[in-house]
Amino acid sequence: MADRLIVIGGDAAGMSAAAAARRGDPELEIVAFERGSRTSYSACGIPYFVGGLFDDADRLISRTPDEFRQAGIDVRTRTEVTAIDLEGRTVAVRDLDRGSEGDEHFDQLVYATGAVAVPPPVPGAEHCEPVRTVDEAQRFRARLEASGACHAVVIGSGYIGLEMAEALVLRGLDVVLVDQAEQVMGGLDAEMAARVQHAAEGVGIRVLLSTALEEVRHHAGGGARSVLTSEGELHADHVVLATGVRPATELAAAAGLRLGESGAVSVDDRQRCPGINGVFAAGDCAESWHRVLRRSVNIQLGTHANKQGRIAGVNVTGGDLAFPGVIGTAVSKICRYEVARTGVCEREAHEAGIDVVCATIEDRTRAGYYPGSGPIWVKLVAEAGSGRLLGGQIVGVEGAAKRIDVLAVAVWTGVAVGDLELFDLSYAPPFSGVYDPLLTVARQTAKAVREAG
Amino acid sequence: MADRLIVIGGDAAGMSAAAAARRGDPELEIVAFERGSRTSYSACGIPYFVGGLFDDADRLISRTPDEFRQAGIDVRTRTEVTAIDLEGRTVAVRDLDRGSEGDEHFDQLVYATGAVAVPPPVPGAEHCEPVRTVDEAQRFRARLEASGACHAVVIGSGYIGLEMAEALVLRGLDVVLVDQAEQVMGGLDAEMAARVQHAAEGVGIRVLLSTALEEVRHHAGGGARSVLTSEGELHADHVVLATGVRPATELAAAAGLRLGESGAVSVDDRQRCPGINGVFAAGDCAESWHRVLRRSVNIQLGTHANKQGRIAGVNVTGGDLAFPGVIGTAVSKICRYEVARTGVCEREAHEAGIDVVCATIEDRTRAGYYPGSGPIWVKLVAEAGSGRLLGGQIVGVEGAAKRIDVLAVAVWTGVAVGDLELFDLSYAPPFSGVYDPLLTVARQTAKAVREAG
Repeated sequence: MADRLIVIGGDAAGMSAAAAARRGDPELEIVAFERGSRTSYSACGIPYFVGGLFDDADRLISRTPDEFRQAGIDVRTRTEVTAIDLEGRTVAVRDLDRGSEGDEHFDQLVYATGAVAVPPPVPGAEHCEPVRTVDEAQRFRARLEASGACHAVVIGSGYIGLEMAEALVLRGLDVVLVDQAEQVMGGLDAEMAARVQHAAEGVGIRVLLSTALEEVRHHAGGGARSVLTSEGELHADHVVLATGVRPATELAAAAGLRLGESGAVSVDDRQRCPGINGVFAAGDCAESWHRVLRRSVNIQLGTHANKQGRIAGVNVTGGDLAFPGVIGTAVSKICRYEVARTGVCEREAHEAGIDVVCATIEDRTRAGYYPGSGPIWVKLVAEAGSGRLLGGQIVGVEGAAKRIDVLAVAVWTGVAVGDLELFDLSYAPPFSGVYDPLLTVARQTAKAVREAG
Repeated sequence: MADRLIVIGGDAAGMSAAAAARRGDPELEIVAFERGSRTSYSACGIPYFVGGLFDDADRLISRTPDEFRQAGIDVRTRTEVTAIDLEGRTVAVRDLDRGSEGDEHFDQLVYATGAVAVPPPVPGAEHCEPVRTVDEAQRFRARLEASGACHAVVIGSGYIGLEMAEALVLRGLDVVLVDQAEQVMGGLDAEMAARVQHAAEGVGIRVLLSTALEEVRHHAGGGARSVLTSEGELHADHVVLATGVRPATELAAAAGLRLGESGAVSVDDRQRCPGINGVFAAGDCAESWHRVLRRSVNIQLGTHANKQGRIAGVNVTGGDLAFPGVIGTAVSKICRYEVARTGVCEREAHEAGIDVVCATIEDRTRAGYYPGSGPIWVKLVAEAGSGRLLGGQIVGVEGAAKRIDVLAVAVWTGVAVGDLELFDLSYAPPFSGVYDPLLTVARQTAKAVREAG
C-alpha cells in the first residue's frame, strides 16, 4: 500500500476518494489540496439558494475541511497545485493566501480538479461574475437583494440556465433566457424540450432561441448594463452565464496524463490513468464509459463524481472496485415540470448511427379521478429490430420524473420494450392509471418496433 | 378462429379480454355477461370516493356497457352465468331482472369472475353491507352523509382496510382499526409495517392488533351498533369489513376447471385452462406465476387483471402473447406515507426457505436543504451469496413509493445489489441527496451480503 496519497481537488470526487481511502487504510497519509476555501459542496443546490428556497448557504456544504481533518484527512484549502511531476512523484503547490510555494511528495495521486466554466467568446463576458461556488452564490444573492434592479439575462438554456432563470423569477426579476441553439435543454429531443420551454414561459421567462450573444456591456463602474445579441440589445442588470463547462485538464495535460477524445482525462474502469502507476482521476475532469454509446464521454454530474471518487479511493488502498459506466441519466425540476432523461435521445442515436424506433405518449400522473393528477409525457427510444430500450425522456408534473430510474435500470440491463410492457410495476390511484405511463409507452414503442419490421 | 366468444365477468379482466378480442378479430361475436349493472370500474378508487376526494362516482367507471356495445361487444349486465357445460360448449344464464333463464353457446370462453369478499366467520358479520362496487360505495357514502353517527370500526388492516379507515377519518369519524394479526399490512415486514401503523395513528386512527373480532351487533331495525372483540366491545355506527377476498371459483370448479394450490383457477402462461381447448381464465379468479417464489399465487390487483385479460383476448383471436408472471409489486398511500413493496419480503423469503440477507436505511426524499424533504425508509432483501435482489419495501413521504418500480425492474431482471449500488440513477436536489436512497440501501445490502459470507 502507498504511504502518501495526494488528492488534487476538494470537491465531490476528490473528497470521496480521500474518505474512501481513509476507510480503506487507516495508516495512509492523505493530503487533499483545494484551491477554494471549502470542500464538498452541492453545486446543484446553488440555484435554489439563489432563488431563496433556503437562506443558509452552509446547508450546501456536506462536509467542511475541519470535519475531514477530524477524520484524519489533511485538507489544505486555498492551496493550488500548479504542476505535477509524474517521474519525481511530486506536485508543486502554492499557498494562495501567503504566496509560499513548495513541492509535495506523493506515492499515489488522485486527480479530481473538476470542471471550469466556458464563458462565451464575446467582449465583456469575461467580466461577468460566475455563480458556481458557494462564495460566488452568496455574493450574487447579496447583489440581487441589495439592488432594486429588475432585469436579468441568462445565457445558456441547459438545465442550469433554466434553474437559474427560474430562481431569478422567484426573486421577482424580469428574466430573458438566451441561447444560440434552436431548443432549450440540448439533452432532450426537440419536441420534449418544447414542453420545458413552455413551462419556463409559463412563469414569465422570455425565451430567445437561435439567438447569438455578441457582447456583454457593463457600466463604467462595474456591473452589467445590457447584452447585445443577434436579435438586438437586452437591458440586463444581472447577467448569468450558463454556457457550459469543460474538464479542468491543464495540469493533467502538462504532466503528460492522456486526454481522451472527449477532452477529459482518460481512465480505465478502476479510475486509473492508463500506463501510469498509482495515478487516478475522477469526477468532472475525467471520462466515463457510456454503456449505450459504447464510447467514453465527459458528463459533469455530482452523482458520477461521488461514485468515481469513492472507487478511486477504494482502489488506492488495495481494493478492486470497477466503475461500470454511465448511461446519461439526468433529472431536473424546471418550473411546473419535472424533466428527466436516460440512455440516448433520438437525436443522439441518429448521430451515433444507431437505428432506432421511438414512441411518445401523453398520460396522467394519477388516476383521472384522484386529486392533483397532471400531465406526463414519456418518450422511449428502442433499438430497431430487437426492441431493446436505449433511452427515455420524461416531462411532467410532480411525480413524473423519478420514473426515469425505472427506465435507467431497464436500459442498463438491456430490457426490450416488448417485455417491459408486461413488467409488474406498481399501481394505485394516487400514482397512476391502472397501466403506469411507462407500461403504456413501452407497449406503444413495442408496436412501433414491430410495425417498422 | 372462433365464431363466438363468451366472457364471464364484466370488470377489468373480462372487458380487457373482450376489447382485445374485438381488436384481434373484427368478425368474432363477443358476448360478455356481468351480474352487476356496470362494467370496468376502479375498485381501487372506492376509498377515495368514500373519503370525499371526489364526488362523482361515475368517474370510477372507465367504460360503460354502452361504450362497449358501441365497440361491438354484446355486454349483458344484470345477467348471471349459473353453470358452464364444457362438453356441450354452453353456459346457463339467468336474467336477474326478468328472472328468465337460457343457454348460450360458446366456441371460446374467458372466465373472469373476479373475487368475492370473505366476511369473518362471526355472528352478525353477514349483515354488514359490503363496499366493493360503485353502487355499494354510493350507498355507504350516502349513509355516512345522512347519519350524524360518528363511530366507525374497520375490520382488517391490509391496504384496503387502512385506506378505508383514512377515508372515514377524512369524513370526521372516530375510527378504530381492528386486526387479529400482530401487524398492519401483512405484505410488509413487521418493522416497516410499524411505520405505517404510526402514520395511521398519527391521523387519529386507533389501531387494535392481535384483536379477534367475535361478533358484529346490529340495531333491531338494521344498522351496526357495536362490534365485540377479544379486547372488549367497541361502539360502531358503521362497520367496514376488509378481511380479504377469495377467487370466485364456484362455477369453474363445478364445471371441472382445475383449481391450483392457491385456490384460484389454474392457467398456463397464455391464460389457457390446461387441457381444455378454447377456455381461458384471467384476473382475480386466476392464478399467476410468481417469478421470485417460483410457484403459482393468487394476487388480486387491477394491474394483473387488465394484463391477463388482454392476453387472453389476444390469444383467443389467434395471437400468441404470454403473461410473464408477477413479482408481488404493490403500492398504496396511507395517511402521510406512501407504502410499496415488490418481490418477497424477509418473512416470505424465510417461509419459502430462501436464504436471504437484508438491510434497511432511513434517508430523505430530497436534498436536506431543499424544501419539503421528508423521511424515506427502504428495506432490501437479497439472496445470500449471490446478492441477487429478491425484494424491496419502501415507506416514506411524497415521492418515496414509486421508486418501488426501480426495484421491481431490478428484481425482474435479476440484478445483484452490488451492481445496483453503482447504477446510473438520476440525481437533483428536489429528488434526493447525491446518492439516491436506492443506491445507498443497495450499498448497505451488498455490504451485508459480503459480511454474511
